[in-house]
Amino acid sequence: MRYYWDELHRFASDCFVAVGVPQDDAEWCAEVLVRADITGVPTHGLSRLAAYIRAIQRGVINPRPNFSWKQGVLAVAALDGDNGLGPVVARAAMSEAIHLAEHMGIGMVTVRRGNHAGAMSSYIDLAVQAGMIGWGFTNAQPAIPPWGGGKAYFGTNPIAFGAPCKDHNPVVVDLATSKVARGNIILAAKSGKPIPEGWALDEDGRPTTDAASALRGSVLPMAEAKGYALALMVEILSGVLSGAEIGPGVGSIYDAGNREPGTGMCFIAINPDPFLGEEFLSRMDQLVDEIHRIPPAEGYQSVRVPGERRAQFERAGRKEGILLEESTIEELEKLSLEFDTPWRG
Amino acid sequence: MRYYWDELHRFASDCFVAVGVPQDDAEWCAEVLVRADITGVPTHGLSRLAAYIRAIQRGVINPRPNFSWKQGVLAVAALDGDNGLGPVVARAAMSEAIHLAEHMGIGMVTVRRGNHAGAMSSYIDLAVQAGMIGWGFTNAQPAIPPWGGGKAYFGTNPIAFGAPCKDHNPVVVDLATSKVARGNIILAAKSGKPIPEGWALDEDGRPTTDAASALRGSVLPMAEAKGYALALMVEILSGVLSGAEIGPGVGSIYDAGNREPGTGMCFIAINPDPFLGEEFLSRMDQLVDEIHRIPPAEGYQSVRVPGERRAQFERAGRKEGILLEESTIEELEKLSLEFDTPWRG
Repeated sequence: MRYYWDELHRFASDCFVAVGVPQDDAEWCAEVLVRADITGVPTHGLSRLAAYIRAIQRGVINPRPNFSWKQGVLAVAALDGDNGLGPVVARAAMSEAIHLAEHMGIGMVTVRRGNHAGAMSSYIDLAVQAGMIGWGFTNAQPAIPPWGGGKAYFGTNPIAFGAPCKDHNPVVVDLATSKVARGNIILAAKSGKPIPEGWALDEDGRPTTDAASALRGSVLPMAEAKGYALALMVEILSGVLSGAEIGPGVGSIYDAGNREPGTGMCFIAINPDPFLGEEFLSRMDQLVDEIHRIPPAEGYQSVRVPGERRAQFERAGRKEGILLEESTIEELEKLSLEFDTPWRG
Repeated sequence: MRYYWDELHRFASDCFVAVGVPQDDAEWCAEVLVRADITGVPTHGLSRLAAYIRAIQRGVINPRPNFSWKQGVLAVAALDGDNGLGPVVARAAMSEAIHLAEHMGIGMVTVRRGNHAGAMSSYIDLAVQAGMIGWGFTNAQPAIPPWGGGKAYFGTNPIAFGAPCKDHNPVVVDLATSKVARGNIILAAKSGKPIPEGWALDEDGRPTTDAASALRGSVLPMAEAKGYALALMVEILSGVLSGAEIGPGVGSIYDAGNREPGTGMCFIAINPDPFLGEEFLSRMDQLVDEIHRIPPAEGYQSVRVPGERRAQFERAGRKEGILLEESTIEELEKLSLEFDTPWRG
């Protein structure tokens, strides 16, 4: 069974409205989630809808936040997100960064009291649509130990980056600084399979290939000590500088209890105009063309640029609809009954 | 035989002056090189002095550049380095980024017509000494293929980042986006040893463990496709946006001929004051303290923070002097004769 953008978007939006989220915010949160599914990142898609809704119902997320801004210096701002929905807070922050960059060439906005904001690429898209280079960072509940450490401290602390092109798809990078997504370990644990060496530590800081032990332990950083250094960089930008929670101080909407997650974020927009004007876009096309012309390595058919596969998925998904996981469908059906909102058609 | 900061610095400075570099620039270039040796990064130290000097003598680097600035928007600037020595151009760019950040909260400066600037951490130090977060990126002659590609396109495209602490050493990250430094492969080739799988491709794009073939081929990115994405990000910031050369357009001072390398760079300084004021420094200390308290993983004694080992090396090196490679000593002796400058004492 295939599901279509319009019906999924309308349903998710209705669910957010049903728990008190204003219409415009609800539509944006729905867009962030459905877009993740459509672009091939179901881990950040509607599989999270029920968790967001339940967190609002439990009082862990504030459906109607009052933002407070610290401003006064012209190219930067600091946002207190009042524990609002992650996508709502993140959109406000990136939009302000873009506004600052329009006038100043660069704009940077930090966020405290945010929440899980879905796929960070959603906010990169905002910058790219405005003709700008975008950068996004967020911390999250502990998953990665520092290199040499036996216990998780950093979140999967992603680095998201993008830049517009003239004729080509925008370049969009969105990567976790962990070696693998935790989802891969959850999958292995469910099917009782071992995980490769080098992925994870158990709860006593010992390397493990047992998926269940790994889930109680931590996921190693990408590229060993280098990934640790990058996770640390993300923590400084999104957590320390913003005044948000850091390390194990950061919670999750999946936690039991009512603790506010206290997530930190950082968004930067760079306006190419004062640097190069229109020439920037044609130089981006030149870069992509040159990369495409590189002969493939043994075992590869072609060389891709980050953002291309996502654009292909989106074109196909919007036209042909998408599949959803059985467990996600069950959750959506439950929400549909609860809010008396049909979720198909 | 141990060598001391003062004598090495004075000698390197004299060599730069001997080929027409102004005194202040000469002292700064000497500082960047000697500091790399003192902090345990000899690949970016005096082993490069002769190459810099020869490039000036061959007319590949301009010892007395006239910088031209493109400014007008308040938080950003673009610098044409007039093919000056990398450390001179990079210092001018980061200094301007710091100046902009003092007033605007953030400052960003791109560089075209730069050159190899030594260890990027040198410019991060400038930001950190000014109480700011610093970021530095540079492209370089081709070394890394895009993931799936069989031929080098990107340089080792480093990401350098740092932030000051209150009582602790500053956090300083300086990492190449390649899997390993090319130096490791050169070393293996010299001793006729194989290199581990996953490090390199040969010139036909096939995985190789033969060090000599790898040197004719390319070094794989760190963390596979993720490292490619980060090398691409660095290329966009330092090469595309700056108007510098990109990909194989970037040359090296080690190349034969007189082609100007055309290196691109990008520097960003972030002033924590408008975000958090003094609290930023104590929060940085808290971060470092929390990381130090994490129990070590199996096989590790303690958990270190990037920048600590470098600070230890520097303290020891300034006091006890340092060792130099035999090949570096030979080059220094040759320069000493040529310029009639004693290089010891």
